[in-house]
Amino acid sequence: MKKGQNRENLVDQCIVARGGGIGMARIKRLIDLPKVQLNRSDPTPLNRQIERQLRELILSGDLRAQMRLPSTRQLADGLGCSRGTVVGAIEQLIAEGFLISSSRSGTFVVGPLRAAVDRRGDKQAARPVKPVRLSHLGEFLAEARRPTYRPGTAFSTGSPDVADFPFGRWSRLCRSVWRQPPLDAVYNQDPAGYLPLRRAIAAYLHDTRGTRFEPSNVFITSGSQQGLDLVARLLLNEGDLVWMEEPGFIEARYALRSVGAGAVAVPVDSEGLSVTEGRRRAADAKLAIVTPSHQYPMGMIMSYARRMELLDWARQAEAWILEDDYDSESRHSGAPLPALQALDADETVIYMGTFSKALFSSLRIGYLVLPPRLMERFCRARYNLDPFTSLMAQPVLTRFIEDGHFATYIQKIRRKFAARRESVVAAARDYFGDAFEFQGDKAGLYVTAVFSGPLRGRPDDEAARKALAAGVVVAPLSSYYQGPPTAQGLILGFGSIDEKTSRAGMATLSSVIDR
Amino acid sequence: MKKGQNRENLVDQCIVARGGGIGMARIKRLIDLPKVQLNRSDPTPLNRQIERQLRELILSGDLRAQMRLPSTRQLADGLGCSRGTVVGAIEQLIAEGFLISSSRSGTFVVGPLRAAVDRRGDKQAARPVKPVRLSHLGEFLAEARRPTYRPGTAFSTGSPDVADFPFGRWSRLCRSVWRQPPLDAVYNQDPAGYLPLRRAIAAYLHDTRGTRFEPSNVFITSGSQQGLDLVARLLLNEGDLVWMEEPGFIEARYALRSVGAGAVAVPVDSEGLSVTEGRRRAADAKLAIVTPSHQYPMGMIMSYARRMELLDWARQAEAWILEDDYDSESRHSGAPLPALQALDADETVIYMGTFSKALFSSLRIGYLVLPPRLMERFCRARYNLDPFTSLMAQPVLTRFIEDGHFATYIQKIRRKFAARRESVVAAARDYFGDAFEFQGDKAGLYVTAVFSGPLRGRPDDEAARKALAAGVVVAPLSSYYQGPPTAQGLILGFGSIDEKTSRAGMATLSSVIDR
Repeated sequence: MKKGQNRENLVDQCIVARGGGIGMARIKRLIDLPKVQLNRSDPTPLNRQIERQLRELILSGDLRAQMRLPSTRQLADGLGCSRGTVVGAIEQLIAEGFLISSSRSGTFVVGPLRAAVDRRGDKQAARPVKPVRLSHLGEFLAEARRPTYRPGTAFSTGSPDVADFPFGRWSRLCRSVWRQPPLDAVYNQDPAGYLPLRRAIAAYLHDTRGTRFEPSNVFITSGSQQGLDLVARLLLNEGDLVWMEEPGFIEARYALRSVGAGAVAVPVDSEGLSVTEGRRRAADAKLAIVTPSHQYPMGMIMSYARRMELLDWARQAEAWILEDDYDSESRHSGAPLPALQALDADETVIYMGTFSKALFSSLRIGYLVLPPRLMERFCRARYNLDPFTSLMAQPVLTRFIEDGHFATYIQKIRRKFAARRESVVAAARDYFGDAFEFQGDKAGLYVTAVFSGPLRGRPDDEAARKALAAGVVVAPLSSYYQGPPTAQGLILGFGSIDEKTSRAGMATLSSVIDR
Repeated sequence: MKKGQNRENLVDQCIVARGGGIGMARIKRLIDLPKVQLNRSDPTPLNRQIERQLRELILSGDLRAQMRLPSTRQLADGLGCSRGTVVGAIEQLIAEGFLISSSRSGTFVVGPLRAAVDRRGDKQAARPVKPVRLSHLGEFLAEARRPTYRPGTAFSTGSPDVADFPFGRWSRLCRSVWRQPPLDAVYNQDPAGYLPLRRAIAAYLHDTRGTRFEPSNVFITSGSQQGLDLVARLLLNEGDLVWMEEPGFIEARYALRSVGAGAVAVPVDSEGLSVTEGRRRAADAKLAIVTPSHQYPMGMIMSYARRMELLDWARQAEAWILEDDYDSESRHSGAPLPALQALDADETVIYMGTFSKALFSSLRIGYLVLPPRLMERFCRARYNLDPFTSLMAQPVLTRFIEDGHFATYIQKIRRKFAARRESVVAAARDYFGDAFEFQGDKAGLYVTAVFSGPLRGRPDDEAARKALAAGVVVAPLSSYYQGPPTAQGLILGFGSIDEKTSRAGMATLSSVIDR
């Protein structure tokens, strides 16, 4: 046979077995086997061409159930290829269940495939599908608000600006690391992540936060939310109670809900979470989630005395404390208090940090510092849910820290964010005077303007809606409360906006908020 | 004041208020304020030096509760620095709750801090901590076996060898992508991941697996286990039943257990999962987890007829099918059957794939192809648990696929793994003859040797233990069964070993398994 020749009539017969099973098929009549054509200019191997065309003929109904194929020798002769080529195709179709072979009576199309062919027809007719219900948890989560961040828009929170991030350096480190990657990065099996990164984090936290722990207690996560989710799943049972700051990071309730744990709102005052109130509301809670370095969203630092009270409670109640140090890298000045972790003599504190706020949010690398008594169990348990965080960025981040680029960058953005905070506060003073009261420490990527003076008691959600309609994004303080809000105000993010945008945004805010 | 001068006597007074509260403190007596020293050759700003030393004095008990500090002017004079510097330090300590300020009576050390000081003492004495209990789920997970892979050891499964992976090219793509990263990679907010990668996956699956769906239905995950975990959490309620292949990927039960769903073992035969048995055991199951392209671990392809039966059941039962195509890239020859997804007219199939087997396991990028009716709800729900998979590798992988490197690499490793499979099977024939029966299609990174002939019925776990003692890793087939195993055998991985290691491993196996 020559390349390209028309083989229309070369494979032209097929025998249908009727009655009885395949094994005892009786030959009834010859029919035409529709065309199989080999195209030798196609790079697809010949056996794949045969296989694909036979499969299509079966699916289309051209080769019907219980048809017997010509012998492989006949097919090979007809197609002008080797018998081995045909055998390869037939074996594949047998493996796939389209054909069945019997040494006594030959190779047959498996039947019935009628339903299947009908189905394909149906599919083209686009049968309407039913609306869907997720699990109870799924429905709860899917109904939740999904905030959209708008980098560059006043006063969107969430994504810090990366204008100064040294992507050139970062990309060179990527190249350098991955050109000949360390084998323990390629073949990682440690649920806690890349050990050199854990060492770098331990050293960094020791220097900046006064913590004391071994690198082996750092547990790399794919960000704070995953960390929180793991803590909830591995430590809480259905019905367990959890202290949450009020107002606070209410998104934590999703993780709690996923295990059926209950969130207990515990008010914060100027010293942070009120342990006295917590004891009154749920003395036997199993976990307290706190932001002692920079309360979210009120911004105060938890006082030393309060820290000790909280640790005392946790020891007595045999509870855990999740210390969420979500933005410790973006403090503008001053060393914050030593972390709770540093004061914990009883292995009750789980410290949680992230690189998303300091570097860029799509990096998705965070960490837990686990008490030694939890470490091995967390590793084993995590391994069976989501084995470990990708090693793609971990060695790159390690080099970024070790080579000093991280510290340099942090210094730079601290100055930048401090200046931006000043701009926002100054613009607010100009436009709002004493109607905005600024609380909290000079840190982070947002300020909380509490309504006071002429705005005291005014609904902040209405203000936020009007602002949004005018193109300014502000989060109402009341949305951070689980219960009735005791204050109204606006969260003003400045992580991604310059001074000009900030002043313009404030002017817009001023024009839409009556007072 | 001059640099380095001893300031021992400069700050020398402090007033203790006794009786009454801070507000109405009566001044009782003067005491010595222990030394605060500024070191101008230290790069730490002066306010930070003052702040840190005062904090230490309070924590150490040298400055006791209710002591009144000298005025900021006195302190500044005494220390030879500006009053602003002192004010900065004092404000920080007030914010941290160490000091309290009253406009009438001055600045005082907050009390009582006695317990705190005791605590620090305790910590040094290393008080013993209690043993820990995790949640019920946590305990279940932490007790589970955590297989360790040993790349390069016969016949370890899990991590394919990366000897041929083009890390040079990969690292250049990293550099190229991250030098000036696309903004939607830096500021990603899409829970489903990086759209160009989703497009590349849709095109690839269309070409290789016959699937038909929009790129918008690809949902990037941090690997198959996370995908499975999400499916379980978002689709299953407590008490729901799930068909699992028997033998099969029993690790799936961890995800099921996490939501209280029940695993129903449904036997596989030569055509794959027995739908008839499934209907008999749990007709109203909510999900079936199947590996139709290459059953894990028996290796057969699910027949076309069986696929249609399964789809029919899912439509009738309003159940979901999770099609786990865990190693479709490592098929050695032949196009596998079109995916179940391609035959699904009712939006019941969730297709799950991963890049871990084809590229390297620490990459942690997988995907789900979701029915359109699930897509938006999964996005919203996931956002509140673990917002999205890191964008660090996604644009790099996109380029790797788009530029054709992925296809080239897959071709290369297919040939390699086909040859390795041949080596293992040939060595097994030489050493074990008909005592090993090889089942399954020519695909994947392992073969399953079922005990037959003289080994039939022999306990495979004992064989595996003996092998391990002799340095050869084999997984017993019986460990893939939830119920009593109906076959014994060994799973022989060849993803990371060359022919020589394979033959040597087989010789060792032969020497420790009596027959």
